[in-house]
Amino acid sequence: MPYPTPLEVLIERLRALPGVGRRSAQRMAFQLLERDRPQAKALAEGLLEALEKINNCDICQTLTEETVCEICADPARDERALCVVATPTDQWAIEATGTYRGRYFVLHGQLSPIDGVTPEDLAIPQLLEGLKAGAVEEVILATNATVEGEATAHYLREALRPLGVQVSRLAQGVPLGGELEFVDGGTLGRAFAGRTALS
Amino acid sequence: MPYPTPLEVLIERLRALPGVGRRSAQRMAFQLLERDRPQAKALAEGLLEALEKINNCDICQTLTEETVCEICADPARDERALCVVATPTDQWAIEATGTYRGRYFVLHGQLSPIDGVTPEDLAIPQLLEGLKAGAVEEVILATNATVEGEATAHYLREALRPLGVQVSRLAQGVPLGGELEFVDGGTLGRAFAGRTALS
Repeated sequence: MPYPTPLEVLIERLRALPGVGRRSAQRMAFQLLERDRPQAKALAEGLLEALEKINNCDICQTLTEETVCEICADPARDERALCVVATPTDQWAIEATGTYRGRYFVLHGQLSPIDGVTPEDLAIPQLLEGLKAGAVEEVILATNATVEGEATAHYLREALRPLGVQVSRLAQGVPLGGELEFVDGGTLGRAFAGRTALS
Repeated sequence: MPYPTPLEVLIERLRALPGVGRRSAQRMAFQLLERDRPQAKALAEGLLEALEKINNCDICQTLTEETVCEICADPARDERALCVVATPTDQWAIEATGTYRGRYFVLHGQLSPIDGVTPEDLAIPQLLEGLKAGAVEEVILATNATVEGEATAHYLREALRPLGVQVSRLAQGVPLGGELEFVDGGTLGRAFAGRTALS
């Protein structure tokens, strides 16, 4: 006996969520239809509302309800520094540290030839165009310390070279509280290569 | 910086899904809004459509698009046997074996005092009412072989006693292909207790 069609359709669509396979999608569908009907309706409506109201900031591409996001619209933010991140989550993680007062640019992804992600997919042309206005003095490449993040940083460093702007990359090394004994060799290698002189 | 409100609402509502915590919900929300907007819309619409079209069968309580499900409406199914299961998934798993030709009753859950699930939550009064019509000769208790499943089966056995109907429980024992060496003690104990005579 096959599932009723709308149930089968729902299961297939739940699989679009990250980390959700066929069995998880089935469990989700059954829970939504069996127990949590008011919550299920709220979820569907919340999703439609978010899709309608949340868009990319015209300037930095982060997710926002406005045309221009809060940070881009804030005259107190230092427009000489531009931090390039892969996702809004990364941006919010940096904001939560409270240490950075410059502006951002959100790529919405990282270069990945395997997944077919090219510079055009990441709004890199827009980033370069914006930099030509000239207010930015330093671009901080805050992509992940992964293969894709490094490839993206490398590509951006080359693309930014003709603009004569200063380019930096987040420091890599032993994490706070990290014990050398338990830190992996790759991290330890980076920590050595990036060692800083103590005056 | 807090997330924009519709995004925060969406994250909270995604947490209603089974096995989804705050971080998974964030990752889902960002993927839905960043990359998969057409798929996200399809998901919301699929969920609303399923909520509208899928209901419980008037007779057996399984999920169906009709008032009475395919199995309950099928005159070829043996109305003398009634298999009681916890969920439609369990029902469909039994159907997939192709060995059972009777009818079903879906409890939509199992008794669990800890989670506050009582006999009334499981439509057990409806089950007992339906049995009074008298066509059913055997009730097969096919709840899970877990604490909740056993408690539900135990409760039902007692509740069915006054009706004079035959009550059975799925056999428990060594799974097909199971090697005794690797079967847990509880299962092995059940397999011993339920051993069958070979003529």
